[in-house]
Amino acid sequence: MSNQFQWPVRVYYEDTDAGGIVYHARYLYFLERARTEWLREAGFNQSLLKQQNTIFVVRDMQIKWQQPATLDELLTVITTVTQVKKASMVMAQTITCGHEQKMQASVTVACVHGDTKKPMAMPDEIIKVITDRDE
Amino acid sequence: MSNQFQWPVRVYYEDTDAGGIVYHARYLYFLERARTEWLREAGFNQSLLKQQNTIFVVRDMQIKWQQPATLDELLTVITTVTQVKKASMVMAQTITCGHEQKMQASVTVACVHGDTKKPMAMPDEIIKVITDRDE
Amino acid sequence: MSNQFQWPVRVYYEDTDAGGIVYHARYLYFLERARTEWLREAGFNQSLLKQQNTIFVVRDMQIKWQQPATLDELLTVITTVTQVKKASMVMAQTITCGHEQKMQASVTVACVHGDTKKPMAMPDEIIKVITDRDE
Amino acid sequence: MSNQFQWPVRVYYEDTDAGGIVYHARYLYFLERARTEWLREAGFNQSLLKQQNTIFVVRDMQIKWQQPATLDELLTVITTVTQVKKASMVMAQTITCGHEQKMQASVTVACVHGDTKKPMAMPDEIIKVITDRDE
Repeated sequence: MSNQFQWPVRVYYEDTDAGGIVYHARYLYFLERARTEWLREAGFNQSLLKQQNTIFVVRDMQIKWQQPATLDELLTVITTVTQVKKASMVMAQTITCGHEQKMQASVTVACVHGDTKKPMAMPDEIIKVITDRDE
Repeated sequence: MSNQFQWPVRVYYEDTDAGGIVYHARYLYFLERARTEWLREAGFNQSLLKQQNTIFVVRDMQIKWQQPATLDELLTVITTVTQVKKASMVMAQTITCGHEQKMQASVTVACVHGDTKKPMAMPDEIIKVITDRDE
Repeated sequence: MSNQFQWPVRVYYEDTDAGGIVYHARYLYFLERARTEWLREAGFNQSLLKQQNTIFVVRDMQIKWQQPATLDELLTVITTVTQVKKASMVMAQTITCGHEQKMQASVTVACVHGDTKKPMAMPDEIIKVITDRDE
Repeated sequence: MSNQFQWPVRVYYEDTDAGGIVYHARYLYFLERARTEWLREAGFNQSLLKQQNTIFVVRDMQIKWQQPATLDELLTVITTVTQVKKASMVMAQTITCGHEQKMQASVTVACVHGDTKKPMAMPDEIIKVITDRDE
């Protein structure tokens, strides 16, 4: 299984603004959809994880918006795990359309307890899947 | 206390789409902000209500979009309760900008239990406040 | 070609609210995605239409929210054109998950000029496609 | 005139997700509202700027989410310009609630031409206002 995960996102009117391009914060929604689908492909369903009080939250991001995306474009979100720690991981995510790169982001995602929102270790099975993908 | 409640909403880039006007579904956000502030003015805080397992959900709406709203406009949401039942109420809401009416909606809001999402009677104090306003 | 068009929508965290269910106005985004894909399947691309100053706007809606949708559910939006006029059409749209119906809406969509936002006749080719589907 | 600008933001249901807290990308909307109001206070209206083909776009951001914000909280966005160049500026923005800091961001905003989306010099009057504030 490859370490790189691709997820398609279509741009709808809801994603654009009066500047005629995708509203800058909407890309973060696209990145989150891709991370969710990456987890789903690995066998993990966030609604089940949430029932077990395991929630992933975004801790920090470095983002570069490089080219504007526009209505009707079919984008690809490319997600790669670059670092795994006990209670968090770092992912490199880019959004492309054909050969054009629209944006790139480095995203730190932390595992927290659903009620307390305090950091906690990621489930072993998730760490195992990530580590196995990496090999 | 008057039965009619007014709440201002500024239009930001986030609210607009590539058509150059406010995205149609965003008006429903504006309506909900106004209903929340109407409840707050009446002394009810939805986060506290939620802790007591009292949640208001929208059951149905009839909406007419009449004139497009645009970036930077300062809108007013006008909210009037038109009917109160045990477990639900109906509100007439309009959005205006100066003398121009942008949209109108009739909104049925129901009270449900936070966990089960089943209908339940509205708290007496809320019914009392609405009834008192009406007089 | 059938008159009924189905489009899948996955529920992500972005669609939910602190009540633990899909935020009521998000369903309108799902409906709009389905209308866009229905047009795309019929051969019409809204970004091209927009360049030709043809924009579709929502004029009115009657909506019933019937059952809450939740995180990770895979919904289906079912769209049927029920009426076609010169400058507008009416669509019946429902959202289901398996055998459960989540919401139903009647949506009037009008064709307007991109700059003036004034009503104008729908392009003949679009009317033709809709009429042909209907038979 | 002070270099630091404060803008209040109330958290509504629309801003929260099923984790019970504000959806991470919604903070970027709050930051953008504050930048818009900062410009407005300085005498610049983005809808007028757009008519003159002057658009501000976000180029990059470094963001740290520090504490979750929750339903009904009244947040304050604090915005400070930290660097001004010919065609872009850098702002430090934090979001607080009382004494608690919820997030911090460094935001590079660039001035682009409305049609071409190519970088262009910021209007002199805007640079002047920022420079005057700074003294």
